[in-house]
Amino acid sequence: MANLLGVFTAKNLLVLSLALNVSLIFRVLLLHDAQNGSFNGFFFTKHNGSQKEALFSPVSSSSSSSSLPISQGDRDRVINLDHGDPTMYESYWQRMGEETTVVIPGWQFMSYFSDATRLCWFLEPEFANQIVRLHNVVGNAVTENRHIVVGTGSTQLYQAALYALSPDTDAEPISVVSAAPYYSSYPLITDCVKSGLYKWGGDALSFSKNGPYIELVTSPNNPDGFARRSVVNRSEGILIHDLAYYWPQYTPISSAANYDLMLFTASKSTGHAGMRIGWALVKDEDVARKMTKYIEINTIGVSKDSQLRAAKVLKVISDNSERPNADGSFFEFSYHVMAKRWKQLREAVHESGLFSVPEFPPQLCKFLNVVFEPQPAFAWVKCEGEIEDCESFLRGKKILTRSGKHFGVGPKYVRISMLDRDRNYETFVERLSTIRL
Amino acid sequence: MANLLGVFTAKNLLVLSLALNVSLIFRVLLLHDAQNGSFNGFFFTKHNGSQKEALFSPVSSSSSSSSLPISQGDRDRVINLDHGDPTMYESYWQRMGEETTVVIPGWQFMSYFSDATRLCWFLEPEFANQIVRLHNVVGNAVTENRHIVVGTGSTQLYQAALYALSPDTDAEPISVVSAAPYYSSYPLITDCVKSGLYKWGGDALSFSKNGPYIELVTSPNNPDGFARRSVVNRSEGILIHDLAYYWPQYTPISSAANYDLMLFTASKSTGHAGMRIGWALVKDEDVARKMTKYIEINTIGVSKDSQLRAAKVLKVISDNSERPNADGSFFEFSYHVMAKRWKQLREAVHESGLFSVPEFPPQLCKFLNVVFEPQPAFAWVKCEGEIEDCESFLRGKKILTRSGKHFGVGPKYVRISMLDRDRNYETFVERLSTIRL
Repeated sequence: MANLLGVFTAKNLLVLSLALNVSLIFRVLLLHDAQNGSFNGFFFTKHNGSQKEALFSPVSSSSSSSSLPISQGDRDRVINLDHGDPTMYESYWQRMGEETTVVIPGWQFMSYFSDATRLCWFLEPEFANQIVRLHNVVGNAVTENRHIVVGTGSTQLYQAALYALSPDTDAEPISVVSAAPYYSSYPLITDCVKSGLYKWGGDALSFSKNGPYIELVTSPNNPDGFARRSVVNRSEGILIHDLAYYWPQYTPISSAANYDLMLFTASKSTGHAGMRIGWALVKDEDVARKMTKYIEINTIGVSKDSQLRAAKVLKVISDNSERPNADGSFFEFSYHVMAKRWKQLREAVHESGLFSVPEFPPQLCKFLNVVFEPQPAFAWVKCEGEIEDCESFLRGKKILTRSGKHFGVGPKYVRISMLDRDRNYETFVERLSTIRL
Repeated sequence: MANLLGVFTAKNLLVLSLALNVSLIFRVLLLHDAQNGSFNGFFFTKHNGSQKEALFSPVSSSSSSSSLPISQGDRDRVINLDHGDPTMYESYWQRMGEETTVVIPGWQFMSYFSDATRLCWFLEPEFANQIVRLHNVVGNAVTENRHIVVGTGSTQLYQAALYALSPDTDAEPISVVSAAPYYSSYPLITDCVKSGLYKWGGDALSFSKNGPYIELVTSPNNPDGFARRSVVNRSEGILIHDLAYYWPQYTPISSAANYDLMLFTASKSTGHAGMRIGWALVKDEDVARKMTKYIEINTIGVSKDSQLRAAKVLKVISDNSERPNADGSFFEFSYHVMAKRWKQLREAVHESGLFSVPEFPPQLCKFLNVVFEPQPAFAWVKCEGEIEDCESFLRGKKILTRSGKHFGVGPKYVRISMLDRDRNYETFVERLSTIRL
């Protein structure tokens, strides 16, 4: 090597080295551009009215990741806040730069298996480590003596839980209930293929059937943001806790949740909906085993690539949270964005006079060490006075929302996503504040 | 910039530049190591007998990616060829180096949506392009006037197809049939949650019920490798073609498949089972729309990360195939490995005298421009003579296989994966050749 170096001058080597740098940087830039291409094309062009059948179908809107000032053109464009696409978080991760960039060589992670000695054999060990670490850092869930099951989003884990918790007999399907307003997709998912194992039973508050049942407790609740407990409380009840929103940007973390079956998802905690990654913390080994079996039959496991990426994202959140004076902390950032947005929303609602939003009692968040009122991922807005169909009314103002009727209550309510990009959100609150009858 | 450069000597800049290179290379190496860690831990430790319930549960074996010569220790170790984990392909992709490495920045591909203007709104446009390109290069499927639906493996797409093709009435569940021997997972998947829409109807060859039915045609067939056509042929039949193995390493490509609904998967074409990526080519728009809706309800789309990786892998395969004198071509490599393995298997079967394997007629492959006999991804082995339970017999020799009873035929047959790593496969054929009664 010394001899070889002798042949070249420092200038020669500099050129060589710079060329290598340029090539590496060029590769990265090229990839960024290619990916941007698909992102910039992200404009909805038509409105699909049949929300009941397909709550995620694209509906018209124009989204943009830029933070341009609101222009004249913005006054007329359609704002789509129907689904909770968490694009609000892009700006934070963009600021974090390469910290969460994943690099996956083509010949790695090819097998179906992640760790065949684990109960959940398709769970990447590093992702499992980072799940436990993040819950310990945030203090929002007990992880001791829990089995982790990874899913293609918490949607798949919900189905895995229904499969695992349904009685293993030829009895009639077990009823699945949740107190209204409940997440609009639950009835659709539950009855999608008319399962003989389980069946949507509607509002838990009016559930009166005898025998075993499954109660879904979403806390904080989607759509209305309130903390929840089970409401049926009968001996034959089995509980699933959907804790997708139990994170400090949305609600004060008062204690570590300690339930038998808890569901979490990357889409609402870190904003990475496109990864399709969720996880369940499960106390009972047999239930965890059956959930794993469902995912094995449904999709033969979960994308390794997304698990690797999720591990990296969770790691960066934990690292940044543990730093003293955590200025760049993910939860500090997202807490402040949500606080600002809820303040703007309440002002706009007040100014218009036609709507109301829930009021929440303030509580101490042990993670952020701040007393604050919940600031949910969705606003559960009621049209006051004579407006009977709030969704239609707002659609007339080119604001697309999801009608309360999909959540087991009346059309006087709508659910509005609070997680869109800044420019869309700003246009929305400005428009809302000016709405008069 | 010129002024700035003047301040530094070429040597200063060289040091700076080299430092940047070292840092970049170090990052990549670190990641490689971390990923290797999980891969090296890939050893099965226990045998789960209840294959019927969970065909993918880990069963004991020792796998290794090394190509060490077969040692004394190899004579005693358990060889697990029960499931078709395509680890054989690792060595090819390792040789390709960084060509298929994906780099995904943390702030990109966060949204649920890939392209909201598409019917399948969660399909990454670049992946769609590469699917069409690869089919055109290989000539194994017609892509014109087809809708592409991406799935979390073809397993999810199979369920999406059942959902889309089932009658939209309150009639009894539609029968789903396939000629025995059929893929052992089909009955399990079909009846997993006791759907009221569809129901496993067993062997298509003995199906006699009137009315509509869905027939699954897997060609080449899993487990036996034969080319197939539908067998029921009644007017009310709806066909799903599973073409997972219609690639030139397994069978001569005689013409472009041109069916209404065709399923493909990365796991068996490129070997990337861990990505969980499959795709469907669908003629009817309404069927494609309903399949998309199923995947929306089941998992709200498909991992973007894996779609990006799959796009890159497919691109490299097409690029390498189109090069003149394509020495490093993926299909050349995999064709030769499969040819060698089938030759070794036939020799071992002949030497032992206790087994038989199917014979296939040779045919011209228009892609490779070679006449050859099919060399399937699985060997469908029959125990001859008095051995009634072939799976138990081979388990006694520490070779784990999947019994013919799971495929709708008797226990005299077993299915054996031909896609394991070299060292496991070599040990297997050597051991098989020495088996005597």
